[in-house]
Amino acid sequence: LRPPASISASICLSGSELTRGRTRDANGVFLAAALSRIGIRVREIRIVPDDYELLVATFRDLAERSDVVISSGGLGPTADDLTVAAAAEAFGRLVVRDGEARERMLRFALKRFATEAEIPANYFKQAEVLEGSEVFLNPTGLAPGFALATERGIFIVLPGVPRELAALYRERVEPYLRARFELSPPRAIRRKVLGLPESVVEARMQELPIAFERLEYGISARPGEITIELLARSDASDNDLHEAEKLVDAEFRGSIIALPTSLGTPVEEERAHAAYVHHLLLRNGTTLATAESCTGGLVAKRLTDFAGSSAYFAGGATTYSNQAKVDLLGVDPAEIERHGAVSEPVAIAMARGAKERFRADHAISITGIAGPGGGTKEKPVGLVWIALATPDGRILSERLDLRGDRDAIRASAAVLALELLRKNLEDRTPPPGR
Amino acid sequence: LRPPASISASICLSGSELTRGRTRDANGVFLAAALSRIGIRVREIRIVPDDYELLVATFRDLAERSDVVISSGGLGPTADDLTVAAAAEAFGRLVVRDGEARERMLRFALKRFATEAEIPANYFKQAEVLEGSEVFLNPTGLAPGFALATERGIFIVLPGVPRELAALYRERVEPYLRARFELSPPRAIRRKVLGLPESVVEARMQELPIAFERLEYGISARPGEITIELLARSDASDNDLHEAEKLVDAEFRGSIIALPTSLGTPVEEERAHAAYVHHLLLRNGTTLATAESCTGGLVAKRLTDFAGSSAYFAGGATTYSNQAKVDLLGVDPAEIERHGAVSEPVAIAMARGAKERFRADHAISITGIAGPGGGTKEKPVGLVWIALATPDGRILSERLDLRGDRDAIRASAAVLALELLRKNLEDRTPPPGR
Repeated sequence: LRPPASISASICLSGSELTRGRTRDANGVFLAAALSRIGIRVREIRIVPDDYELLVATFRDLAERSDVVISSGGLGPTADDLTVAAAAEAFGRLVVRDGEARERMLRFALKRFATEAEIPANYFKQAEVLEGSEVFLNPTGLAPGFALATERGIFIVLPGVPRELAALYRERVEPYLRARFELSPPRAIRRKVLGLPESVVEARMQELPIAFERLEYGISARPGEITIELLARSDASDNDLHEAEKLVDAEFRGSIIALPTSLGTPVEEERAHAAYVHHLLLRNGTTLATAESCTGGLVAKRLTDFAGSSAYFAGGATTYSNQAKVDLLGVDPAEIERHGAVSEPVAIAMARGAKERFRADHAISITGIAGPGGGTKEKPVGLVWIALATPDGRILSERLDLRGDRDAIRASAAVLALELLRKNLEDRTPPPGR
Repeated sequence: LRPPASISASICLSGSELTRGRTRDANGVFLAAALSRIGIRVREIRIVPDDYELLVATFRDLAERSDVVISSGGLGPTADDLTVAAAAEAFGRLVVRDGEARERMLRFALKRFATEAEIPANYFKQAEVLEGSEVFLNPTGLAPGFALATERGIFIVLPGVPRELAALYRERVEPYLRARFELSPPRAIRRKVLGLPESVVEARMQELPIAFERLEYGISARPGEITIELLARSDASDNDLHEAEKLVDAEFRGSIIALPTSLGTPVEEERAHAAYVHHLLLRNGTTLATAESCTGGLVAKRLTDFAGSSAYFAGGATTYSNQAKVDLLGVDPAEIERHGAVSEPVAIAMARGAKERFRADHAISITGIAGPGGGTKEKPVGLVWIALATPDGRILSERLDLRGDRDAIRASAAVLALELLRKNLEDRTPPPGR
């Protein structure tokens, strides 16, 4: 038996819309993250057009080189959907129609067509699988997935609709793989550091006395948040990892959150920090208002992305103009005149105004210069003031000097405003287990 | 000479963060769209980890099968950055340091390090290119790109930072390719249909007497917007395409916009519709306020994504609670009591209130049930009312019955609210060339 760490997978994404750059892949990154998380090494991902010969060659080539091949897409009813036929040729199997999948398709089709005879002939093509495969009925769509154990390894076919693929992966594919391989999830720690530039995080990490020769280190950046990962190589002890964890948590204390270990889609991963604050607000039973200038509603958008946010989100004002800051939030025009719209006093007045006007327990405000225009020597692009009004009448404010383009500055400001709130909420009611 | 249409390219994206699913690719989709647009067919895209042997094999394999190979990533200073060394082995060339790139790096490094001796040895690894290649100095970063004409075709190396890659592609790679191949951009039409479900667009397209046997047809969906493409095959006449264009434009008149033909990053493509409305608002010299309930600030966010939006964006209110609708927008509580918050009268009152409170020429309002909770039999999830208040005192309102999950409903509502505004603005001042 080979050691479990050596199980490898390859992913094939098919669709001319991908190779023409018309659609941005979501399945490859989802599968890569999902497989990595259960300890399967992804050897490569190939994206190919709807081309029969190329699909056959790709399936053969990938099966040669890895234990598991997962294919996504090409299961629809049209002539461009070639996955099953190409797999049949690549692995020398017959194409058969799965009875149960066909039955479900028929029931579905009869909502649209009066009789079976009216259903287009190619419709039932979607019930095709390879002979001898284990069929994964599709809970949210039509075409089923399936897995075939061949002499060259496991070959798994999934539909290309991201929602369907993610559901089938979670419910069927992962259990299937766990039953067939002795998998040990990678020993790793994963942390999100908020509010520090990547270069600073990188430099500080390099200074830490971590056993980098036995722990593979990765860093990835999104505006306002840096993700650090340390992955144990086979010669690393649990103690190496434990020591590294303590060092990292101490180094970035106050600006770090541990990432959820659940399996997220790319969108869920992008929303992990806002989700954390969302749940914290729900748990605290408090309400929040927002007053945003340069972020233009981004904080409000990020929280209301989540169902259930109406329990705490009192409302938000996007006050781009000075007039709107005065009219809607009651900011004193003399303050704006004296200090400028991007200033600590105006940020404070905005937070205070939003808290009052929306009758909320907490209010966040953001005012800054997102650029590319509008910067001056005294107030350059990237200067942002944020403030937080709390239920006990305190106002906390913070000056941010952000770098990057307009999107990066806006996104960072939104993350850091949510961070100001998070720290304040967690100071009061430390959640369990931290 | 082979006909120009047969020039093919392959793309190799390297980075273990990609095969571990930690980073979502932006370069593959950008390059695929960019190459397709100048008439180069993308044969496949491979994503591989930082693995020397696999990189060498991949470069060789791809060069065997296509005229152009473009590699992205792996040009940094660390031991994981293997692209140049692997390419050297794959193509039998020497690695050399580019003098000009090294000079620029030195100047940059001397801002951080006092003397040249203090600069880490591996720093200048980023100046490495292959002997005999044409070097593309990086205007926004350190590591240059380069192109090598080999007996097996063109091999191009670009840095993995998406902003750097996009800039180098536009400024250097595309001109390089145009100078070496006789390219004819694909004859195609491309339209965005707004506010109709994909199934309806698909069904209506199928009914049109278009020469589908000579025009390759593609459809792709994003919440609230469907993109249609018709691509001429080699046997299609210009007349086929012209006739199809007339049919599509007539079929979807009023809910269609032609897409910009400029080369966009994935983010720019996603923002194409909002960008259109943004420019329309600028051109009209009018101002806008927003009043959003279920979309939670999404419309405000989408417009303020663009620099210069402060010229027209007066402000926005995200009024989730009934109280906020009353307090901030002056909605009559009796109206909410009588008709419910998701109703035509409340949408109208919100638009009117936002126009007044923000002193704007136009105001958009949105109130609806984004779900997953909160729906009833009379007012199901997906029911949304939008309204537009215009400078002449009119109020237009529209009922939307949207499908999909929370994200899809919110995104569709935002698109359709912007559409209501667009149609109204274009009725008054038809832009040139439409």
